[in-house]
Amino acid sequence: MGKKVFLGALAAVFLNTAYAAPLKPEDQIRFRKAGYSFMAWNMGRIKSNLESGYNKDEVVKSAAAVAAVSNSGLIALFGPGTEHDIGETKTRVKAEFFQQQDKVKELATAFNKEANELARVVTVGDVGAVKAQFGKTGEACKSCHDKFRTD
Amino acid sequence: MGKKVFLGALAAVFLNTAYAAPLKPEDQIRFRKAGYSFMAWNMGRIKSNLESGYNKDEVVKSAAAVAAVSNSGLIALFGPGTEHDIGETKTRVKAEFFQQQDKVKELATAFNKEANELARVVTVGDVGAVKAQFGKTGEACKSCHDKFRTD
Repeated sequence: MGKKVFLGALAAVFLNTAYAAPLKPEDQIRFRKAGYSFMAWNMGRIKSNLESGYNKDEVVKSAAAVAAVSNSGLIALFGPGTEHDIGETKTRVKAEFFQQQDKVKELATAFNKEANELARVVTVGDVGAVKAQFGKTGEACKSCHDKFRTD
Repeated sequence: MGKKVFLGALAAVFLNTAYAAPLKPEDQIRFRKAGYSFMAWNMGRIKSNLESGYNKDEVVKSAAAVAAVSNSGLIALFGPGTEHDIGETKTRVKAEFFQQQDKVKELATAFNKEANELARVVTVGDVGAVKAQFGKTGEACKSCHDKFRTD
C-alpha cells in the first residue's frame, strides 16, 4: 500500500488507542491543573457559603467534588517530563516534588483524609463543624502548596 | 486615615469576601473548563481500562470523579459575560447555549443521569455492563458538544 494510506492506517490505530498510551507530559500537566483548579472553585464555594447564606445542598455538592478529585489519583499526572513548563503549558510544581516522594505521599494522604472527612461532615454536621473541618482541609491544601508549589 | 491606609483596609475587606462576591466572568470560564477537562481525563482513563488491562479500582475512582463534577452544578459558571472569549480566556460555547435554556437543561439532566448510572455500574457491574454504560455516557457528552460547542 502507498505511504499515505499506511500512515493513515497507523494514525487510525493510534487514535483508537490514544487513551491507552501514556498521556503526553503536556496533557498530564493540563489535566492535573484542571483537577486543582476545579477543587479551588469548590473550596471557594464552601468558603462563600460559610461567610453568608449557607446553602447545604451547594456545600454538599462542592465537598463531594473536592473529595472525588482528591480520590481520583492525581499523582498519575506527575509523570516523567512534567517537571517543568512545556511551551505554553506552565506548571508551578517545584523540583523537590519529584525528589521527596515520601513527603509528597504524606501530604497527599493527609489532604485526602481531610477532604473525605469534609465530604462526610457537610452531610451530617452543623455549620460550626463544617467550618472547623473546612479549615483543616484548607490547611492541608496549604501545607502542600507551601512546600511544593512556587509562588 | 490616609488614602493608602483606607485603600489597604478596603482591599482586605474584598480579599476576605472574594469568594462571596459573584465570580468574575473569566474565572467562571476558567473553572468550567477545568471541570470539563477533568471529566475528559477521567472518561479517557475509563476508555483505556476498557481497551486493555481493566483495573476496577481506577475505573471506580474515575467514574466517581465524572459523576461528582456532573453533580457539582457547573451551570453556575455560565453567567452573564461568559458568552465569549475574554482576552486570553477562550471559550468554545455557542451563542445558542444562552438562548436555549430548556434544551441545555434537558441535555445536562440526561448527561447527569448517565454519569451517575456509570458511577453505580462500575461498582457492581461486569466489564460488559461498564462498557455499555460508558458508551451511553459518552453519547450524552457528545449530544451536548454537537449542539452547543464550536469545533
